[in-house]
Amino acid sequence: MTGTRLTSLVQGLPATVPFVGPETKERARGQRFAARVGANESVFGPSPVAMQAIADAAKEAWMYGDPENFELKQMLAAHLDVPPEAILVGEGIDGLLGYTVRLVVGPGDRVVTSDGAYPTFNYHVAGFGGTLTKVPFRSDDREDIEALLTAASETDAKLVYFCNPDNPMGTWYEADRVQDMIDRVPDGTLLVLDEAYAEFAPEGTLPPLDPDALNIIRMRTFSKAYGLAGLRVGYAIGHPDLIRAFDRIRNHFGMGRVSQTGALAALHDQEWLRDVVGKVAASRDRISEIALSNGLTPIPSAANFVTIDCGQDAAFAKTVLDQMVDRGVFVRMPFAAPGNRCIRITCGTDADLDVVARVLPEALDAARAHTKS
Amino acid sequence: MTGTRLTSLVQGLPATVPFVGPETKERARGQRFAARVGANESVFGPSPVAMQAIADAAKEAWMYGDPENFELKQMLAAHLDVPPEAILVGEGIDGLLGYTVRLVVGPGDRVVTSDGAYPTFNYHVAGFGGTLTKVPFRSDDREDIEALLTAASETDAKLVYFCNPDNPMGTWYEADRVQDMIDRVPDGTLLVLDEAYAEFAPEGTLPPLDPDALNIIRMRTFSKAYGLAGLRVGYAIGHPDLIRAFDRIRNHFGMGRVSQTGALAALHDQEWLRDVVGKVAASRDRISEIALSNGLTPIPSAANFVTIDCGQDAAFAKTVLDQMVDRGVFVRMPFAAPGNRCIRITCGTDADLDVVARVLPEALDAARAHTKS
Repeated sequence: MTGTRLTSLVQGLPATVPFVGPETKERARGQRFAARVGANESVFGPSPVAMQAIADAAKEAWMYGDPENFELKQMLAAHLDVPPEAILVGEGIDGLLGYTVRLVVGPGDRVVTSDGAYPTFNYHVAGFGGTLTKVPFRSDDREDIEALLTAASETDAKLVYFCNPDNPMGTWYEADRVQDMIDRVPDGTLLVLDEAYAEFAPEGTLPPLDPDALNIIRMRTFSKAYGLAGLRVGYAIGHPDLIRAFDRIRNHFGMGRVSQTGALAALHDQEWLRDVVGKVAASRDRISEIALSNGLTPIPSAANFVTIDCGQDAAFAKTVLDQMVDRGVFVRMPFAAPGNRCIRITCGTDADLDVVARVLPEALDAARAHTKS
Repeated sequence: MTGTRLTSLVQGLPATVPFVGPETKERARGQRFAARVGANESVFGPSPVAMQAIADAAKEAWMYGDPENFELKQMLAAHLDVPPEAILVGEGIDGLLGYTVRLVVGPGDRVVTSDGAYPTFNYHVAGFGGTLTKVPFRSDDREDIEALLTAASETDAKLVYFCNPDNPMGTWYEADRVQDMIDRVPDGTLLVLDEAYAEFAPEGTLPPLDPDALNIIRMRTFSKAYGLAGLRVGYAIGHPDLIRAFDRIRNHFGMGRVSQTGALAALHDQEWLRDVVGKVAASRDRISEIALSNGLTPIPSAANFVTIDCGQDAAFAKTVLDQMVDRGVFVRMPFAAPGNRCIRITCGTDADLDVVARVLPEALDAARAHTKS
């Protein structure tokens, strides 16, 4: 193409995208999904307080947001008991991961993650020219902390990505084990600890926040338990020196006023959050029961989804998934072995799970017929 | 700092930010501004239809936005009479400028802009290692098209930035002159035509959209005339090959559902847009009258602000601005000569301009006293 000379880095990037959205599939099917339980959104919705705040903020939508995210950072700081200087607010964890990679990864720099972990992180690493080393998940469907640390050390990695509770498997480590990992991150490596599902995890899962630690940045979000994926608000906790470095590259006016206002209100309503966490736990139980009643094995989850072992290979799981999608249920599945023998179902309302309960046996029958043929 | 190894590019970036937000100044002053007429926001607000759509979308805020921005692109395509493949939707023009720079600018690549033009563009160029050549504005306060083209050619620039109607001066070129510029952009240079203020411009200002042109990308926004700065929705029009290239690097889930919904509704309400454009024209006239009645010279504007020549040097204009800010009026001023002899006042409501009319003579008196001392 003449007229525009893309950088050599961009020229070498694939045109593929990390995720296809459910709306794309809905347009292809010509109808809406009957159950939207594929993207780990919170079907229980945002707090009514947050909804009212969003509605009220509409009349202020003509104003840019505060580029310092001052109020939200102040309240997060109080909520988390860390100084506001240790907090970065940005355009969802996706946006914050992009900024983090941009800060530290240049062409040829090494980055370590798990094979089958968050593809959007990998997308950003590729986008800035980094080279990924992927470590397999363990056979118990947990990320392999020792292998991650070893790979980081051996490759002199600038970043190592770790998600706890894990997506896409739902597995988790207890705080002591995670703290041990933090303590042992090699010098010169920054641990990106993705805690998008933090609020759903049992007590004792999250190590204490330590803004004095230099080798870690922790990512959290309003997109999951707070039910505000559609506002795009994430935050990171890290050493103030590191947090300050983001000011050199971030889109200072990237956060809109409506999103800031909605997130602030959501944070105020901790009672709603507790209620959602309870509903998610009940929904996890029901998804597990549905799986078991179909002869499948649910993997214990500390997140707002349950990943289900379909008991055969990746091709079979993919067929089950396709059959569910064809029947109007939006679900996703892990991308890499060994997780790709599974499908992943987001916690839903009773109505959502009624649909899942009806469709899953049909999908399994169809997949088994398909496999035999 | 140990623990995190920033890229050498990031290490070399300054810690300064492109703009300080009005909220920062309000916190420093300990009170809100009486008139917020500094950021070229639309004080006339968003369409009531858009406000209702935002309020209604609050209950859907738990869902991620459509990463394809399908509906908004379809409607923009119909509205602009270009194919949807020629449209990119993203996180405001600030976000789109960042992506554009990232696509084409690597360390040492040359970029041309006007001295005193949009600082956020310069911020992105520096952020990706580009080297800026800055061309002075003409003595008639318009950007210097010939000098921009010459500099682009001489430096083999990968990008040249041009804003029409211009920010921060408000001046503009007619469509024929801009089309001539487009036709003469050097091979291998991409013209970034920032048309954030397009809707305010007199008929005959905007050259026809041509998605077959390879050497231009045009930026527009819902942040100005549509009154939705707080949602962060911009769009770009370009050749489909170029637009597709953004899919390799953009934050696919960067657009929130509430923002998508609000922008779509705003686009539907063209009557509101016409009404706002009329109010802006009346407000421009009144700002000009206020300037003239204080012995100052308003610069004719095709945007939603009026830049006022304070008749002395940059230090004097800065003092006038500081005095206005001290008196509760948020205004800004051009950063570079010759524009920095001016202050820039965004179109306001009658109440806003009553405050301006009261405060400006006081600020001028104080500045004159300050200059004498």
